[in-house]
This record gives sequence, structure tokens and C-alpha cells, in this order.
Amino acid sequence: MKKENISDAVIRRLPRYYRQLNSLYSSGVVRISSHSLGQEMKITASQIRQDFSCFGEFGQQGYGYNVEELRTEIGHILGVDKNHHLIMIGAGNLGHAILQNFPFSQTGFTVDAAFDVSPCVVGTYINGIPIRSMDELDDFIRIHTVDVVALTIPQHVAQEVANRLIVLGIRGFWNFTNIELSSSDPTVQFENIHFADSLLTLSYRIANR
Amino acid sequence: MKKENISDAVIRRLPRYYRQLNSLYSSGVVRISSHSLGQEMKITASQIRQDFSCFGEFGQQGYGYNVEELRTEIGHILGVDKNHHLIMIGAGNLGHAILQNFPFSQTGFTVDAAFDVSPCVVGTYINGIPIRSMDELDDFIRIHTVDVVALTIPQHVAQEVANRLIVLGIRGFWNFTNIELSSSDPTVQFENIHFADSLLTLSYRIANR
Repeated sequence: MKKENISDAVIRRLPRYYRQLNSLYSSGVVRISSHSLGQEMKITASQIRQDFSCFGEFGQQGYGYNVEELRTEIGHILGVDKNHHLIMIGAGNLGHAILQNFPFSQTGFTVDAAFDVSPCVVGTYINGIPIRSMDELDDFIRIHTVDVVALTIPQHVAQEVANRLIVLGIRGFWNFTNIELSSSDPTVQFENIHFADSLLTLSYRIANR
Repeated sequence: MKKENISDAVIRRLPRYYRQLNSLYSSGVVRISSHSLGQEMKITASQIRQDFSCFGEFGQQGYGYNVEELRTEIGHILGVDKNHHLIMIGAGNLGHAILQNFPFSQTGFTVDAAFDVSPCVVGTYINGIPIRSMDELDDFIRIHTVDVVALTIPQHVAQEVANRLIVLGIRGFWNFTNIELSSSDPTVQFENIHFADSLLTLSYRIANR
């Protein structure tokens, strides 16, 4: 059923649908119309139907969507049931905060290890996750499945560390360094968390209200 | 020149244009066509012209855009020249990381203080920014201009702290708590950094490549 070449805009709405459906499911909502779903998300019903049509038919005309089924289906499309494996490079303040607080399992990820250069943290654990030395990184990746590397390292080493990881076969990067990383290999995926874009969006809203 | 009711999608592309133009400007590029700008950003030239037309006319047909002028203009629309004032609530690992590493001044923000409940950090400085006690928060806000509050606090206190701040007159929130915050006051702006949405987008890409 799945179409090729789904636009970035549609893909980026999927996690929002998933979040909303999780929330509806937790609240005990069994069935919801595209109209009601859209109202809460500030998206039109027609947009929702168009988005979902990229992946098949999820609802029945006039009956709305079964919340639990739709949540499972969108979770499946997002790969939440794939049990992806992640490691983190950089166990400084940001890495620590994410390991401590981010609910990885809810997004279908298992964090197997974090790596750092500082002897102060190597050998310790954060939220049960071992912090290993960067010297052990290559061996670790050769032995373990690693689908995604989260980068919470200083900007000036980010591209160099990414290059090293790409050579080791890593193809997914969750990039918190606030700089654009690139690779000539089109199979490498960089997902950048741009704090600045978010703050500037807020800046626009408060400057123009 | 400015139109009302500019869509969220257009607003969210503005920081990306700004980021790209900053990068072009730093590289010494003087003039760029909408076609070339679009290629680097994976947006069509027609989309770019449509987006900019929401805010007036920035280029001259056939001559492209003057990079420095366009960067200044978009920065102005985003409020980068407004010198917004920000305080942070929560000086734990995440707050610490952001205060230490995020280039606030490049987005036109000044961070005046951070607040925390822990006596271990109250009275210390991070990157020159004083960490004050939550007991001082109300007085601080009464005396100082605060345009935005960054929330880097635990989820279970997030809505309660937001409510307290709204009563004190705060209208802009940069929310890192990974939960949705809300207010019945439509003038209150919440900008949420959803780490999960980003990781799920990456999950989709690696699951469907």
C-alpha cells in the first residue's frame, strides 16, 4: 500500500499524529473523526485524510478512526516496533540530561551505551547505561547492532566524529550539536535538533503578536 | 507590506532561511537566485518566492537576492534585532548544557538569570549567568523585562510552574520538558522542543530506507 517518495512535511507530521493518538488512547478515547483529530492539532480534516492516504486506508468513511488501531499503525510506520539500537557519543551535561530523562523505550529505542573522552565519567552509569571510553567505540560498533548514534559532543569535533562513525558503518545520526553535518553518502541520515530554529520561531511570534 | 495570518509552515521555514543565509554570508556569497537557495535547502524556487511574498518583495526579477540584505530583512522579521530577554527555569543538566553552549546572542536573546530550587547550584554562575533561587523569581519578574522563559524542569512540575509564570505576566515559553503545556490565554505562546518527534522522524527514515 505504501507509496514511494513521501514528502518531508508528511513524514514530520507522523510523530505529531502518533503523539496525539497516544494522548487520546491514554484518555480512553476509542474512536475519533478526522475533523476532531484535526481540531486538536490545528490541521484540517482534509489534510489528515491526504496524509494518511500516503500509507493506505486507515478509516472508514463516516465512522472515523479507531484510536488504538491507528496509533498502532502509525507507530508501525514510524518503526516504533522495530526495537532500534542507539548509542550516545558525549556524556556531558546534555548527554546526561537526555539519558536521564528521555523516554527512549516509548519511541522504540534501546540505548546500549554512551561514550565519552573524560576519565571522570568513563566507567560510570547514567540511568543504568554504561559510559565507555571513546577508545572502545570501534570495537563496540563492530560487535553490536547500532542503528542510531546520538551526538551530544562539542561542535568542533562533530564532523570528525561523524566521519569516523560513517566509516564504521553508522547510517543514522541524531545530531544535537547545532551545526549541520553532512556526508557524501546518500544512505546516511542526519536528523538535526536545531534549538535556534525553535527559539527564532518563538521570537517571531512574540515580536509579531 | 506584511500580511496577516501567515501559516505556521511558512513561519517555521523562516529560521531555516535565516540559517542558510547566515551560512552563505559567512562564505562570502553576495547574491543568490531563489533556484540556488532552494537547491541547497531542498525547497523549490517557487516555494521560496511564495514564502517571501508573505512579507513583501525582497528580490528583483532575474537578479536574485542580495544575501546580506535578505539576511538582515529575515532577521528583522524574526525579531533578531529586538534584543529579547530570557530567563531559564531549571539549572540541572539540560539547563546547564543550554546555558553553556547555546549561542543566545546570535538569535537576539540576552539571558539575564537562571532559577533553580537546589541549594547546590543557587548562587553559582554558568557561563557568567547567575543561578538564583526560585524564591526570588516573582520579584525578579516584577522588576525586569522577561520576554521568554526557557523551561528545563521536571515534567511533573512543568504546568504548575508555567501557570505561576503566566500569572506573573510571562507570555513566551521555550518548553524543553517534552510534555504539552497549555493556557486558556491565547496570548501565551508555547514553543515546544519535542525530542521524540525528531527521533521518530529518524526512526521512520532508517526503517523505510
